[in-house]
Amino acid sequence: MVSAPGGTAAAGETAAQLRRLDLAHVLHPHATVGRAPEPLIVDSASGATLRDIDGNSYIDGTCGLWQCAVGHGRAELAEVAAEQMRRLEFYASFWHLSNPQAIRLAERLAGIAPEGLNTVFYTNGGSEGNETAVKLARLAWHASGQPERTVILSRQGAYHGVGSASLAATGLPAFHDGFGPLTPGFVHLSKPHGKPYGTETTDVLVAELERTIAEIGPERIAAFIGEPLLGVGGMVPPPPGYWERVQRVLREHGILLILDEIVTAFGRLGHWFGAEHYGIEPDIAVTAKGLSSGYVPMGAVLIGDGVMGMLDGTPFRHGFTYNGHPVGAAVSLANIDIIESEGLLDRARTLGARILDGLGQLEGDDRVAEVRGAGMAFGVELALDDATPVADAAREHGVLVRAAGSTIVLSPPLVLTEAQADTLVDAVTKAVRAL
Amino acid sequence: MVSAPGGTAAAGETAAQLRRLDLAHVLHPHATVGRAPEPLIVDSASGATLRDIDGNSYIDGTCGLWQCAVGHGRAELAEVAAEQMRRLEFYASFWHLSNPQAIRLAERLAGIAPEGLNTVFYTNGGSEGNETAVKLARLAWHASGQPERTVILSRQGAYHGVGSASLAATGLPAFHDGFGPLTPGFVHLSKPHGKPYGTETTDVLVAELERTIAEIGPERIAAFIGEPLLGVGGMVPPPPGYWERVQRVLREHGILLILDEIVTAFGRLGHWFGAEHYGIEPDIAVTAKGLSSGYVPMGAVLIGDGVMGMLDGTPFRHGFTYNGHPVGAAVSLANIDIIESEGLLDRARTLGARILDGLGQLEGDDRVAEVRGAGMAFGVELALDDATPVADAAREHGVLVRAAGSTIVLSPPLVLTEAQADTLVDAVTKAVRAL
Repeated sequence: MVSAPGGTAAAGETAAQLRRLDLAHVLHPHATVGRAPEPLIVDSASGATLRDIDGNSYIDGTCGLWQCAVGHGRAELAEVAAEQMRRLEFYASFWHLSNPQAIRLAERLAGIAPEGLNTVFYTNGGSEGNETAVKLARLAWHASGQPERTVILSRQGAYHGVGSASLAATGLPAFHDGFGPLTPGFVHLSKPHGKPYGTETTDVLVAELERTIAEIGPERIAAFIGEPLLGVGGMVPPPPGYWERVQRVLREHGILLILDEIVTAFGRLGHWFGAEHYGIEPDIAVTAKGLSSGYVPMGAVLIGDGVMGMLDGTPFRHGFTYNGHPVGAAVSLANIDIIESEGLLDRARTLGARILDGLGQLEGDDRVAEVRGAGMAFGVELALDDATPVADAAREHGVLVRAAGSTIVLSPPLVLTEAQADTLVDAVTKAVRAL
Repeated sequence: MVSAPGGTAAAGETAAQLRRLDLAHVLHPHATVGRAPEPLIVDSASGATLRDIDGNSYIDGTCGLWQCAVGHGRAELAEVAAEQMRRLEFYASFWHLSNPQAIRLAERLAGIAPEGLNTVFYTNGGSEGNETAVKLARLAWHASGQPERTVILSRQGAYHGVGSASLAATGLPAFHDGFGPLTPGFVHLSKPHGKPYGTETTDVLVAELERTIAEIGPERIAAFIGEPLLGVGGMVPPPPGYWERVQRVLREHGILLILDEIVTAFGRLGHWFGAEHYGIEPDIAVTAKGLSSGYVPMGAVLIGDGVMGMLDGTPFRHGFTYNGHPVGAAVSLANIDIIESEGLLDRARTLGARILDGLGQLEGDDRVAEVRGAGMAFGVELALDDATPVADAAREHGVLVRAAGSTIVLSPPLVLTEAQADTLVDAVTKAVRAL
């Protein structure tokens, strides 16, 4: 971390008081109850730079939780949000109710989405998006005379959220512990871990998919859900040709493809959607995070024309209160404009190549099992069970990265400067080499 | 509706174009796919007044979807949001990460919450809150040596959301159609419909609860979940003494009480929490809506000290990306300040009594089965299966109310003026009498 004189807590309130109140009153996601460590309290941020209440600065190596595509603290998005709040903060978008911003955003999303995804259903985030996608897929079959098609195929290593169905889809067993029974009907295939192997790995995975479909019976399978590359599972791209061949098998059996683009859409892989990167056309694409860059919680499920056809005439009795939030929609429109006007898709490809090249220097080191990535998403898998010591050491060098099991995962804001990118690579390299 | 000259759509974009784009690209919650009616596109709002893109004005008789406690379009909340966005729009609150606004809001919530609810877990809305509450209750038993306690008791007529577990808790069968299999382990008791009856109804409901617990076995039951009064189910207050007696039975058997305060908290019943109105102390209280008045999607689950004790030493592997959003937290703090400084809790009681008295004049009319309410929440149940014609007629009189099955439900903003309250009552009365 880079220290600066003086803290930035509000007058009369010390950093120590805030830490004490945090420990007393906040249950943080993924914390151990009653054993929470001292909190790191982030107070301000700009671009890819964070500052804590003690005045220390850090480079944001993860884009928060992947959300801040256009970087932090952008005044133009604050102005868009305030203007919309003064005009109409929110009313409702259930039934026949609507608002201009939600409509304009839906049109814009249909324009940049993969072929055939022309209808938008709004959410507040990724978990809600995947709950929605599973319900859409099951209802589409129910409505079109095949109500027994309820099984959802997923993969080990997948992360799809923490609602009861999105958690059942998640293939990380520790996340299930103590919460069951969860939603039935989810079957997990092997983790599609590609890097060290070639198309023979794809052969194995596709053969397993075909065998599983035959065992269950395609007439019982509603959909297959997957992230373009595994995110929480360690930033793992699939082996060569995986997605095209999976899509071909699914289509042979009429199984819908739900692509969980929560991490990947809006530039993370150098395209509007990860589907473009892998050359596929999902039936449903679930987005969140980069949609609004996190300035307002917002997600969007993009629904294919085929699924809409299956649902024709059917009531969709599903919806979260803040569906189509005008402030979130106005900010998301402005955010998409920034991604476009600042050329951030191209930037994700070129800057991403530079970072992957830099991190790649670690390959061959005994402490490193694998370096991998795509666009601005990277994983440095260590020859350790727990990458936390490296994340902690990187923090001492002024960058915040995330330990996901044995892997250091990085996904910085797309507006990271070249100098910040190099600092990020240096800090991770030093942290690994200090092991 | 009250017409005004001139529309308010953006330059070069007609109201007709927006309506066409809405039909082409937006799937609305609870709409019938491919059969959506012309949308009502709300463009601006202030206080309790809405204006559509054609320039028509309406009184908001439902507070949107119950969320806008302090009314629409408040410039001071827009300023708070913009200031926070410029400083820190969001980073993350997972693990040890935090921000000052989320901490301050948690302290404030613990200060106004019922006794013993001192810990806050943040969400983006109500469905996520109830998914969280069910997971907390099951995990608390799992962690304290009784992993077989997984059953959740709920009630017919209840609405708890649309995630797989919150939907399983929901006791409105039409909401389940075509989405199964849902999360197992939910048992529904009878609808606690109190008004026409006295404590003998309470006797029947409590006896059913005791019998159900005996049949299932208390050693298999994790929690009971309920709204203080049924919201979507038709604004139905429970019969006299219901909640105190239910709480007593649950405590005898060590069953946790999850109170779904999504509609009721932050003034709807004239108190910070509906629990105060009914004199109970839940183990977990789920809030959303009025927390931020809907300016930013935000929810908070308040967790009792006893539950935290059961979880001591256990990792809580659960969390939604936007947990502890600084903008939502800053706006929620300012919103709570407004509720306090403008005396809106008292106002909900006094204005609510005036409205209930006005609507009560409809009792005895053949077209009306029952008029009921508490605080600023009202139901006019009709002697019809579907109250939609009355909602449509009320719109012609310039007020927007909601048809929930056979009931017209009303829950206006707490800042409604006396004149607007009287207009609301008049419009509903005329709409009923025109049947």
